[in-house]
Amino acid sequence: MNNLGIVKRNIVRADRAAVEKLSRFGVATIHEAMGRVGLMKPYMRPVYAGAHTCGTAVTVLLHPGDNWMMHVAAEQVQPGDVVVAAVTADCTDGYFGDLLATSFRARGAKGLIIDGGVRDVKDLTQMQFPVFSKAISAKGTIKATIGSVNIPVVCAGAQVNPGDVVIADDDGVVVVPAAVAQQVADAAEARENNEAEKREKLAQGVLGLDMYKMREGLEKAGLKYID
Amino acid sequence: MNNLGIVKRNIVRADRAAVEKLSRFGVATIHEAMGRVGLMKPYMRPVYAGAHTCGTAVTVLLHPGDNWMMHVAAEQVQPGDVVVAAVTADCTDGYFGDLLATSFRARGAKGLIIDGGVRDVKDLTQMQFPVFSKAISAKGTIKATIGSVNIPVVCAGAQVNPGDVVIADDDGVVVVPAAVAQQVADAAEARENNEAEKREKLAQGVLGLDMYKMREGLEKAGLKYID
Amino acid sequence: MNNLGIVKRNIVRADRAAVEKLSRFGVATIHEAMGRVGLMKPYMRPVYAGAHTCGTAVTVLLHPGDNWMMHVAAEQVQPGDVVVAAVTADCTDGYFGDLLATSFRARGAKGLIIDGGVRDVKDLTQMQFPVFSKAISAKGTIKATIGSVNIPVVCAGAQVNPGDVVIADDDGVVVVPAAVAQQVADAAEARENNEAEKREKLAQGVLGLDMYKMREGLEKAGLKYID
Amino acid sequence: MNNLGIVKRNIVRADRAAVEKLSRFGVATIHEAMGRVGLMKPYMRPVYAGAHTCGTAVTVLLHPGDNWMMHVAAEQVQPGDVVVAAVTADCTDGYFGDLLATSFRARGAKGLIIDGGVRDVKDLTQMQFPVFSKAISAKGTIKATIGSVNIPVVCAGAQVNPGDVVIADDDGVVVVPAAVAQQVADAAEARENNEAEKREKLAQGVLGLDMYKMREGLEKAGLKYID
Amino acid sequence: MNNLGIVKRNIVRADRAAVEKLSRFGVATIHEAMGRVGLMKPYMRPVYAGAHTCGTAVTVLLHPGDNWMMHVAAEQVQPGDVVVAAVTADCTDGYFGDLLATSFRARGAKGLIIDGGVRDVKDLTQMQFPVFSKAISAKGTIKATIGSVNIPVVCAGAQVNPGDVVIADDDGVVVVPAAVAQQVADAAEARENNEAEKREKLAQGVLGLDMYKMREGLEKAGLKYID
Amino acid sequence: MNNLGIVKRNIVRADRAAVEKLSRFGVATIHEAMGRVGLMKPYMRPVYAGAHTCGTAVTVLLHPGDNWMMHVAAEQVQPGDVVVAAVTADCTDGYFGDLLATSFRARGAKGLIIDGGVRDVKDLTQMQFPVFSKAISAKGTIKATIGSVNIPVVCAGAQVNPGDVVIADDDGVVVVPAAVAQQVADAAEARENNEAEKREKLAQGVLGLDMYKMREGLEKAGLKYID
Repeated sequence: MNNLGIVKRNIVRADRAAVEKLSRFGVATIHEAMGRVGLMKPYMRPVYAGAHTCGTAVTVLLHPGDNWMMHVAAEQVQPGDVVVAAVTADCTDGYFGDLLATSFRARGAKGLIIDGGVRDVKDLTQMQFPVFSKAISAKGTIKATIGSVNIPVVCAGAQVNPGDVVIADDDGVVVVPAAVAQQVADAAEARENNEAEKREKLAQGVLGLDMYKMREGLEKAGLKYID
Repeated sequence: MNNLGIVKRNIVRADRAAVEKLSRFGVATIHEAMGRVGLMKPYMRPVYAGAHTCGTAVTVLLHPGDNWMMHVAAEQVQPGDVVVAAVTADCTDGYFGDLLATSFRARGAKGLIIDGGVRDVKDLTQMQFPVFSKAISAKGTIKATIGSVNIPVVCAGAQVNPGDVVIADDDGVVVVPAAVAQQVADAAEARENNEAEKREKLAQGVLGLDMYKMREGLEKAGLKYID
Repeated sequence: MNNLGIVKRNIVRADRAAVEKLSRFGVATIHEAMGRVGLMKPYMRPVYAGAHTCGTAVTVLLHPGDNWMMHVAAEQVQPGDVVVAAVTADCTDGYFGDLLATSFRARGAKGLIIDGGVRDVKDLTQMQFPVFSKAISAKGTIKATIGSVNIPVVCAGAQVNPGDVVIADDDGVVVVPAAVAQQVADAAEARENNEAEKREKLAQGVLGLDMYKMREGLEKAGLKYID
Repeated sequence: MNNLGIVKRNIVRADRAAVEKLSRFGVATIHEAMGRVGLMKPYMRPVYAGAHTCGTAVTVLLHPGDNWMMHVAAEQVQPGDVVVAAVTADCTDGYFGDLLATSFRARGAKGLIIDGGVRDVKDLTQMQFPVFSKAISAKGTIKATIGSVNIPVVCAGAQVNPGDVVIADDDGVVVVPAAVAQQVADAAEARENNEAEKREKLAQGVLGLDMYKMREGLEKAGLKYID
Repeated sequence: MNNLGIVKRNIVRADRAAVEKLSRFGVATIHEAMGRVGLMKPYMRPVYAGAHTCGTAVTVLLHPGDNWMMHVAAEQVQPGDVVVAAVTADCTDGYFGDLLATSFRARGAKGLIIDGGVRDVKDLTQMQFPVFSKAISAKGTIKATIGSVNIPVVCAGAQVNPGDVVIADDDGVVVVPAAVAQQVADAAEARENNEAEKREKLAQGVLGLDMYKMREGLEKAGLKYID
Repeated sequence: MNNLGIVKRNIVRADRAAVEKLSRFGVATIHEAMGRVGLMKPYMRPVYAGAHTCGTAVTVLLHPGDNWMMHVAAEQVQPGDVVVAAVTADCTDGYFGDLLATSFRARGAKGLIIDGGVRDVKDLTQMQFPVFSKAISAKGTIKATIGSVNIPVVCAGAQVNPGDVVIADDDGVVVVPAAVAQQVADAAEARENNEAEKREKLAQGVLGLDMYKMREGLEKAGLKYID
């Protein structure tokens, strides 16, 4: 009836070239390029300033206070993957620390996105292993209940399918469906090129009002200037 | 009936010398000097550690998910201003990023205080453009509804009138009405001088109990020492 | 009927050698070693990145918006103590700043844990005086109502008795009862030694599934692999 | 420099007839009629279901954990007033209970709006004394620090001047400046009349799409219907 | 690239008999019967005590502060549907009130689930139109930006596809995929029958320890009884 | 080293007559009578309006998402007890529903106080079984990890020892140590008698300013009346 207790081994990962291209852009640019969908809630924050990552999602569904499936997920990681962990209830326990980070990195993982807590922040920072989480907590977890690996999950308000591209930086975390990865990468590039030009103009003192030709629209909308 | 859809061009800014003097003191000192009023809610945080600013307020009232008026505000900015943005409802969208920061800086703005979200944190940090916000979010906004510029607003629980002095640092954001800017600056200076002396004594091991002559008051209040 | 308005002067501090040994381990390790009890809520955060401390608790119970008892507590501090401040109601005021930090340090205090707000973050950072708090706020407090010093308190969800060991780092704050300090320190050491070996194996690519012999348990629990 | 420690006795209350007319409309209607300004944050909730009130504001500024000024405010209450209490910091203490409610009612007060906590909810419900608050807490307060009465305050994000009309019901709390009370009341009436007709049509199955003639606009905006 | 600006007219609704059967069980029972997945976040609450509903989902994706698409959704409603509204960012505005409720009801809608705010709570209560929301707010919205209707959405942490069964009561909101509706209904029935028997025994004083035969397991887990 | 995995069978309950007397007073009165200590955080709310209880505490420490120990606690309940449940981490799962309520009631329990979630709210309301909780959630829990029964716990910020008196009503939850139960009951009675007289006077229009003789104090504190 549901897909609890399942580990899917063969998943279709987004095209490697598209992932590589997406890794050159920031989360805000990609989110715009995709039409403003796929963003996780803003409570997801990097555990150290400047953390950023981009990779293909290996998803895992955990139970509150239980990180057993993180070890199951580790085996499914391939180089270039980012683990995306959802929890079936709000719980701030620390599901992940330096040992799992060591294991994940050894498997080629490029980071972790978790809608829960993590610990060993000092070690994660020294390792420069990018982690984005809802909380930081020294509280450990048990290994008693099975969840699933590589099923579709909802993480911090965003739908994530295994193989999707996940990009995370100081601005948040965004999910790009595998099927549109190349398309979004191209759109992001176009957008970025376009922004460079705008930035130049604005730096010279040109107003957005003029650059974007907003004055007429504002007047029509009824904006009044008074002294 | 209300002042939506209005841009006030000529505002009376606080005295420049008073603003300059206020810029030498921290938010906590100024808040004390003013009698503990005018502080924004503590959820307002700098987007990068060490951000600080002091300037005269250009206010803007935005609608949720709409940053159109930020461009209108840019034109009203004069060198030394800090933009103070309120939103008519709680919404964590990213109303401001590196392009607007570039434009604001080109106009002479010294920072942004916004009761909403911002993005492009990495760029803002590299630019060292001071921003204090309620949230960080990659989610962009639309340009569909007009608000107002340079009307009185309530931002993060504090009343801000255009031209007031806004000071922000690691401790928060405080608003000094233009009319009392000089008076508050003087009081802050007096307070700071006074603190230097106290700090010296405390560093030598003198107790606040003795320095502030608290022992009698505490005894009257009924404090009992036991072994 | 209660112990409000009381200052206990003679408290039994945890064994110095045990405290010293505990200071070598992180909060997560100590929390595990103690059986996952004694952790404060994860909303307690360091005011600057990298802050950490370990010492014996001098406790203080404050009233909302009133820091009078902080000065009383200062006199009870002995070298190696950490002040643990609880408040009788949720209130984010800034109960502590650079003056009190100067006084605390002069008395030998090694840090402050407070279930409320603090200010002068820039100074605290420059002083490298470790503070863990619920909030940062420039708002000062009054000195009107007595509380107590060195009574048992509940701080951020954890019971703290005077003389207990308090350890705080990036992962949070944990309280070790004085009576078991040595025992917990030994257990933490054993745990840490054990972890080094595990880390090595995981770094070489050994899976936790194999290292912890989890495969059989997962199968019994009904985990199914599909392609 | 500021107006702490001040009680203003003579305030200009909104026109009685306008207040009376406003009392016939709900908060949502009035808020719309005023142009969507003046609403308090949605965390302000009635302490019992169905509570509603409308009256002229007597404002009071309290300190955290201190309700001394509530007694000072009681004396300034005239029949038809609603007391609006702001606090200088976030604090959930119970500043108000059945004794003060008895006193307020004896003075003619029609309710209380407080950006803090209250207690004696059972009594307030039995008395049917309308209270809208941020929290409910049994924790009492002290009487040690003076604030002010009848100064402009910011309460739950809304600016309130003494004499303004305050309307509160299940949907929230809205503030109508005294100067526009009659104008807003008329606009609310027009809006309400207009709504009755719309409600009728919608009840008969007419779609808003047709009633508001939205189809063309939606098509222009690019909306596409697929099967 | 994405499905913004799309209205899907023909959706496959869950089997009517299965929906009917599901309507006889509570959210907690159904959630258990489905294997503890599909629950929305617990911040989703009924706007009046005792509200409950069960129907097939018509989904709508809104922009912050904009309820234009609610009118588009109204046209897609068929008798027995429940509208499920997601918003692209956190925003507590009141997107829905008595006019839309009148329209929805006229179309046969059985309720609304919205990850945002609503207003006209008094009217909704009198109409007994079941609404479950994140917030209550008198603040109205604009009609400027198109979203989509009947696309898959994430609402309050749960994935909802058009046509899925949505059940809501005092315990929360759960989503049952259309494909398993009958299966879940049967499992819920079995569970409910089973519970009646258990309830009887427990009411007679039989302990869960004995009824569920937990004593051995607890002993094995190391539980110790002391006097 | 700690007391996890322990069930203490013989606990010393507060004197029955004192408990009976305490049951006649509200939480606010008792909290005042005890000197404003022992109150749980205000996020603890009754699951139905008007719920209230008073009894002796049987404590239980749970793990996140695991309610196994609730069944163990049931056996330790004696008529007149109130179960007080703490969780080792923040987790909103529904640990308790109608089956456990049936069992608790059969054992003579007078209510439940839980720093977590509960479900079956409709049944609990029909049963009029008083429950005070942090959250309502349909999400069930597992039975995998042992905690403890009748050890000292911290619940919602308050220290609770087995046998203490717990009183809960619309205003919150307060804990009275068993040793002072009679003393607090007497103080509450005195306070209540005293309040009746005050209420009478206030109802007649006497101001608190005069009744409590506050005018002189206010003047000394610097309060100024202006016109």
